[in-house]
Amino acid sequence: MGRWKPDARGRLGKAALELYAERGFDQTTVAEIARRAGLTERTFFRHYADKREVLFGGAAVLEERMAAAAAGAPASAGPLDAVAAALDAAGEMLQEGREIALLRQPVIVAHPELREREMAKLASLVEALARTLRGRGVPDPEAPLAAEAGVGVFKVAFERWILDPDSPALPEILRDCLSALRSVASDARTPAS
Amino acid sequence: MGRWKPDARGRLGKAALELYAERGFDQTTVAEIARRAGLTERTFFRHYADKREVLFGGAAVLEERMAAAAAGAPASAGPLDAVAAALDAAGEMLQEGREIALLRQPVIVAHPELREREMAKLASLVEALARTLRGRGVPDPEAPLAAEAGVGVFKVAFERWILDPDSPALPEILRDCLSALRSVASDARTPAS
Repeated sequence: MGRWKPDARGRLGKAALELYAERGFDQTTVAEIARRAGLTERTFFRHYADKREVLFGGAAVLEERMAAAAAGAPASAGPLDAVAAALDAAGEMLQEGREIALLRQPVIVAHPELREREMAKLASLVEALARTLRGRGVPDPEAPLAAEAGVGVFKVAFERWILDPDSPALPEILRDCLSALRSVASDARTPAS
Repeated sequence: MGRWKPDARGRLGKAALELYAERGFDQTTVAEIARRAGLTERTFFRHYADKREVLFGGAAVLEERMAAAAAGAPASAGPLDAVAAALDAAGEMLQEGREIALLRQPVIVAHPELREREMAKLASLVEALARTLRGRGVPDPEAPLAAEAGVGVFKVAFERWILDPDSPALPEILRDCLSALRSVASDARTPAS
């Protein structure tokens, strides 16, 4: 994802998403994508390995930025504060590409194989965050638990952001959701034994 | 999952899991499963729609029991306490079938398509728990956040239980992990704004 600059990669990506939305992912060919972008198939394959990479190329960048932000949180920050830094980074990156995210989402939702791939990317994100937290000295099971909680917040916030046209900016929703999770976790009526 | 009784369904399930573990899921035929169980293919198809259902038939039961336990928590229980009741139910059900879970897990892990299906089942579990919490009057985004957190706890606890041969019983690990999540969420060094 990220901002689509008026370069070849950006034009191809936008053309692809528009076509996936109009005709469906399976019905779109690389030739059609290249044609709509005013470029050649050869140029497409210089930028993307295949049709799916247009949709998932951003996931690796997102994971990298989130892990870097968590790693870079102050040494004094607790596990969920490091996760909060990762969520801030994700919010900034995705908010910039909201137009793309809005085109992309219905394509993913409509296609079981793409939905499954999206879930696999989120599982990989949990792993990356858990590794980063362990690198900060967070023990198990706290590290994977904080990572799971962070990705849970991401999923809930992302869905609200995508579905509501008048939604606040993603970084704000992410902070609200993380805050709501903290309340839910501390607001137990019966004490955790 | 659940306990495998010495009935036809149980014998077929156990034979199938043994064969998947020995030869791989793709290399096992229904004829072989039936033969090992001392039954016919026809009997297999009376109990299971296909080879995959042996692995995932228990997921629907698990989801149902967890949702029922959350729904049945005292009216005064907060969202995460209702989730704790669901986790207790899951722990009891799976602990009874530990032998099966141990046979099943490497089969899933070794096979991308089965892993993806497992993730889809967990996503469905999140949905079911969020619906149940909404039914208890928990608003959004707290309902899906508590559901995500609960399934996150389930995943982390389940993995510890499966990987450690000397592991405590699953209900105990689930309670420890939920407790650890509560500490992580409340132990922020910098306040949630």
